[in-house]
Amino acid sequence: MNVLVLGGNGFLGSHLVDRVVELGHEVTVFDRVQPRVARNLEHLKGRIRIINGEFENRRALRESLEGQDIVYHFIGATYPLASWKDPFIEIDLTIKNSVAMFNNAVEAGVKKVVYPSSGGTVYGRQRSPFTEETPTQPFSPYGIAKLCTEQFLNYYRDVNGIAADIYRIGNPYGPRQAVGSVQGVINIWMEAVLEGEEFLVYGDDANIRDYIYVTDVAELMTHSLDDLGTSETFNLGTGEGVSILRLLQVFERTLDAKPKYRVLPRRPSDNISSVLNSSKLLAHFPGYRFVPLEKGIKATWEDLKRRYRAYPDIS
Amino acid sequence: MNVLVLGGNGFLGSHLVDRVVELGHEVTVFDRVQPRVARNLEHLKGRIRIINGEFENRRALRESLEGQDIVYHFIGATYPLASWKDPFIEIDLTIKNSVAMFNNAVEAGVKKVVYPSSGGTVYGRQRSPFTEETPTQPFSPYGIAKLCTEQFLNYYRDVNGIAADIYRIGNPYGPRQAVGSVQGVINIWMEAVLEGEEFLVYGDDANIRDYIYVTDVAELMTHSLDDLGTSETFNLGTGEGVSILRLLQVFERTLDAKPKYRVLPRRPSDNISSVLNSSKLLAHFPGYRFVPLEKGIKATWEDLKRRYRAYPDIS
Repeated sequence: MNVLVLGGNGFLGSHLVDRVVELGHEVTVFDRVQPRVARNLEHLKGRIRIINGEFENRRALRESLEGQDIVYHFIGATYPLASWKDPFIEIDLTIKNSVAMFNNAVEAGVKKVVYPSSGGTVYGRQRSPFTEETPTQPFSPYGIAKLCTEQFLNYYRDVNGIAADIYRIGNPYGPRQAVGSVQGVINIWMEAVLEGEEFLVYGDDANIRDYIYVTDVAELMTHSLDDLGTSETFNLGTGEGVSILRLLQVFERTLDAKPKYRVLPRRPSDNISSVLNSSKLLAHFPGYRFVPLEKGIKATWEDLKRRYRAYPDIS
Repeated sequence: MNVLVLGGNGFLGSHLVDRVVELGHEVTVFDRVQPRVARNLEHLKGRIRIINGEFENRRALRESLEGQDIVYHFIGATYPLASWKDPFIEIDLTIKNSVAMFNNAVEAGVKKVVYPSSGGTVYGRQRSPFTEETPTQPFSPYGIAKLCTEQFLNYYRDVNGIAADIYRIGNPYGPRQAVGSVQGVINIWMEAVLEGEEFLVYGDDANIRDYIYVTDVAELMTHSLDDLGTSETFNLGTGEGVSILRLLQVFERTLDAKPKYRVLPRRPSDNISSVLNSSKLLAHFPGYRFVPLEKGIKATWEDLKRRYRAYPDIS
């Protein structure tokens, strides 16, 4: 089938593209990155179509939607910490642009929209693990906008009959995460190590997250391709809680470099505990085995070192 | 104290103004209606300050916020049925304008923001009665935007320490509801009767609503004046469910005119059942007695007839 991946050169998007190409589908990527510098898709040259455009360019977006069966929407405005400072970015770039895209997808006859939401923020400050039935109560503009966008997508499903799959993803990490980004603690720590800088560890043993390797995210999100007529909301995490201090231990044990860091109290923009019960989704993947944390961290580290060597301008 | 009422010439707003003036506070109204035609505030001439402006006029809005202790925000973009057709109106006019106001209120040093949300839409299609703990799941753009705005208000509370009271109101009715509006079934039916036209009744005995007389809404919302330091989310309804067909019976019995109507199936934009358990709020009003439905409908009818006579151009 014809699969459009918005933000397909990005971190999550490019891994999803890899897996969907492997499955034999026709993939179109819509991304703001110029095709010639779309490094995360270099290895797929000639095998996918890349359309270059800004998400705000409604005309380019509409063209990319023509003839597509399903669209994965990986274009995100910002991240929890930045959104904490300016909620308007989330309103305009997450909510409004996404709703415009849903509208265009309906008009283009797309059968299903897949929306990656945030398991780490939509449930807010409650005791985890969270199921999909846990009441939502986001408190950061990032989480508020993600939930609002989910609800608008379900509105389009109700009114126009377009199918809508929502994945509330844990804390993804892995190769290809943007360098210089401030999202993804594992990525941020590793960059600091490579730069020989000290990094900051916010929180204590009560700060629990559900870290999930990016290829696991991609693999599990291909579930949406199985049936273009169904609409579901799924949690997408490993179900295993790892405290920030345990993560630090694994980090120190796995890296072939000595990290320098300082432990500070939790920030108000951070959740305390966030672990996802994903049994609803995993029921479609019997016997599924997640990439173990140590293995994932090692692969992420090797990738980041390789990119630092290949593109010295990267930092 | 100094009380600003945004949309203070409107239906809910003007009744709140009445009550707050009675309680002896200094009231400023910000409304798009020119003071000389602000009919719902005519009787308060000289006792309140009226600032004329559009909600989108950030400068006029900022000026009105200066020196205020508390602001009641009654400016709404639209209503559930209209929002069903165009979600962008809700994003821009409800979410974005409200967040801009919260931002301005913080900057102006306002101590509390009071936001009238919608008990009829934020809980969505679930079995009522709803408590404030019932998981929210709005399905109309109107309800989605109301909930999102609630959450952004709580974000400003968390980050800036401004107090925030949210009232999730049932189906308010009563004198002064806008003529020619399509919001408020009681109002719509009465206008049709006055015009000698047939009206449409959507739904059956399963369509249950929590109709609340507008002075009850105003009285109960004055709770926010008691303590400018507290922040709460309250349901605001009578707790009594009335089916659309029972409402029709009361209507026929109470009006001194013969209504013509047709009963049609429920619309997809409508909720099925929506009754609010408001015991959290009523705990602050021991022995509170609501205006009974018959009495409220009679008063609403007399008011509408009087307005039709006084302003023949009204329709």
